Amino acid sequence: MAVGLQEPEVLLAVKGIETAAVSANIKASGAKDLVLFKLAETSQCAAVFTQNLFCAAPVTVAKANLAAQTPRYLLINSGNANAGTGQEGLNDARECCQLVAEYGNCDTTQVLPFSTGVIGEYLPVQKFKKAIPQLIEKLDADAWLDAGRGIMTTDTLLKGVSRQIEIDGVIVTVTGITKGSGMIRPNMATMLGFIATDAAISQSLLDQCLRTAVNTSFNSITVDSDTSTNDACVLVATGQSGMQEITTENEQYALIQAAVTEVCEFLAQAIIRDGEGASKFITLDICNAATENDARKVAYTIAHSPLVKTALFASDPNWGRILAAVGRAEVSMDLDKIEIFLDDVCIVKDGGRAVSYTEEQGQAVMSRDEITIKVDLHSGVSSARIWTCDLSYDYVRINAEYRS
Amino acid sequence: MAVGLQEPEVLLAVKGIETAAVSANIKASGAKDLVLFKLAETSQCAAVFTQNLFCAAPVTVAKANLAAQTPRYLLINSGNANAGTGQEGLNDARECCQLVAEYGNCDTTQVLPFSTGVIGEYLPVQKFKKAIPQLIEKLDADAWLDAGRGIMTTDTLLKGVSRQIEIDGVIVTVTGITKGSGMIRPNMATMLGFIATDAAISQSLLDQCLRTAVNTSFNSITVDSDTSTNDACVLVATGQSGMQEITTENEQYALIQAAVTEVCEFLAQAIIRDGEGASKFITLDICNAATENDARKVAYTIAHSPLVKTALFASDPNWGRILAAVGRAEVSMDLDKIEIFLDDVCIVKDGGRAVSYTEEQGQAVMSRDEITIKVDLHSGVSSARIWTCDLSYDYVRINAEYRS
Repeated sequence: MAVGLQEPEVLLAVKGIETAAVSANIKASGAKDLVLFKLAETSQCAAVFTQNLFCAAPVTVAKANLAAQTPRYLLINSGNANAGTGQEGLNDARECCQLVAEYGNCDTTQVLPFSTGVIGEYLPVQKFKKAIPQLIEKLDADAWLDAGRGIMTTDTLLKGVSRQIEIDGVIVTVTGITKGSGMIRPNMATMLGFIATDAAISQSLLDQCLRTAVNTSFNSITVDSDTSTNDACVLVATGQSGMQEITTENEQYALIQAAVTEVCEFLAQAIIRDGEGASKFITLDICNAATENDARKVAYTIAHSPLVKTALFASDPNWGRILAAVGRAEVSMDLDKIEIFLDDVCIVKDGGRAVSYTEEQGQAVMSRDEITIKVDLHSGVSSARIWTCDLSYDYVRINAEYRS
Repeated sequence: MAVGLQEPEVLLAVKGIETAAVSANIKASGAKDLVLFKLAETSQCAAVFTQNLFCAAPVTVAKANLAAQTPRYLLINSGNANAGTGQEGLNDARECCQLVAEYGNCDTTQVLPFSTGVIGEYLPVQKFKKAIPQLIEKLDADAWLDAGRGIMTTDTLLKGVSRQIEIDGVIVTVTGITKGSGMIRPNMATMLGFIATDAAISQSLLDQCLRTAVNTSFNSITVDSDTSTNDACVLVATGQSGMQEITTENEQYALIQAAVTEVCEFLAQAIIRDGEGASKFITLDICNAATENDARKVAYTIAHSPLVKTALFASDPNWGRILAAVGRAEVSMDLDKIEIFLDDVCIVKDGGRAVSYTEEQGQAVMSRDEITIKVDLHSGVSSARIWTCDLSYDYVRINAEYRS
């Protein structure tokens, strides 16, 4: 189903992190739908959230709690987004935090709530009441696979990855999970992503590390242009690896940054590979733009074009649709200089179809599962890379049937 | 197939306009694909064209010719867009104009070329050579239905309409045809629209009349957000009705403006009713916005959301998707003041689901073929109304199979 993606067999434990997942019957299917993370007292925590103005109740509460104190618990439910639920939704999110705080012996504001699922329905708080003591009971350093499964909604498979690096002779682990498949055009955050490391790093550098990683990963993907009300991405550093704390942008920081970015890019790409109905994984490489913003506008205009996406689904080298999308991106450009490539095949040059281009060349590329569309604007030195997928019958089916 | 739309049985002749359509075998189906309009020497002509930077060769040539002289002929082919064809495409478009000029006894620049169909293939000029003498031969005042059929591509039915008004005792006719079904998000123009009247009106007022009419019609619709490379809309006034020429914005001008706007709105709505795969006709009414631009941004964000469109297809009152689209429109708004209605049912109020709302009410509205989504932003006095359709399996099928 997903393009070039398999479930991880193992996710490495991160010192200082325990997790658990149970079925609280929020999902009708009876699958796991409630997840708890416990963070060691030594942890720092950074997070980014959706820019959708109608952000969900848990986003509002998580932002406020994160600003107040360093969190000890992350509580995540799938099956219900607690979005569009007004004051009652806020009360429900806070009540769930309070339940965790009672059983987990911390302040209510030390619990961050996250929800994902159907928008516009009230949270079944009674189900949380019953399940939270079970979650506390089950907390385990080796339950990341359970956690990954517990946050899924329309995802067809669990998405997670681990990386280990060595810093000054100390092994440091980074493990992350994510969920998301539709309503994917993250804006300053992803659907839901939880990444933890046992590295020791100051709060300000942890914030910077997350923002940098998110920019080229979760903020560079789109399935359907729809920014969710519930996007959130959290990076926790427990400081329990035994390494010395990083407090400046030194070589050690660069190693951590690279590992976190690699994990985030893997997870973001996993969302696209498992995009609703996706049969192709598409990389958009826009280069030599006047500004990065121009490059991103061109990339997203192509990525959101229903006509480009249906041509990709059909493996049809209808490159005129790509050209038409570039032309409506509201970016000033010199048409005679633009080059467009499908993988290594040049399709557009000198304002029209490349003389060297043949339909057979285009067909050969379009038949692949993974395709790079490259647009060289020849008007500057900025670039952008984003990932997207095609638009298939199954996208329509999945979203037409979502609530039925 | 089309939502609440039937083919016109009659299109009224416009004094001073003759037209003809033939099959030049540009379309593989053998259907009519080449149309000629002859305009009386007394005619004035106004036109608006696509804002897509990659505009097609005929658009470039038509703009230049219109700037040079008052046109005597409009030559339109379907089945090939002559877009993305570089210098050769420009040469081909000019050669076709020259052929019409030879047989029609006028200057080459008095012919405006229009093309619609597949992007990126060269125009089969030899086929034009054979067909143009036939077209000249067949010119007839009563052939508007033929012309309407000859410009169709993926349209499932012919789209045209006539209106008559009386100005100072003189009967004035306005007749228009249009084509378009996919790659529809016109920007300062439509796919292709040809409207003619026998009113007498100065060139500057004719320009103004077209721009005003297009703003609330062809520039207020979207099927799939994809602005075409070939959009064009032409308004001809032959001056042959017998009325006195309008040279100021008087009462007579207002009558003509109203009739032309009515024709354009009918035609623009017809494109949406026949949108590729459309099963619903949706009106988006955004009111009390701070600016018209804000209102249009909110309207288009909802109209382009694949999740809203698939929910509409499924007749699923998943109003959370509408709320999420409003929230990501990049318009500043006071969430607590916003109200959203499905027809007359209030679904969102005070930042969340309206207390009065029931799923049954939403379901009743969503089951209809024609639905109005109204968003009251309560932050100003500006408004916008646009029309769109749903996203169905058939949209994917039509566009996955388009070239096969």
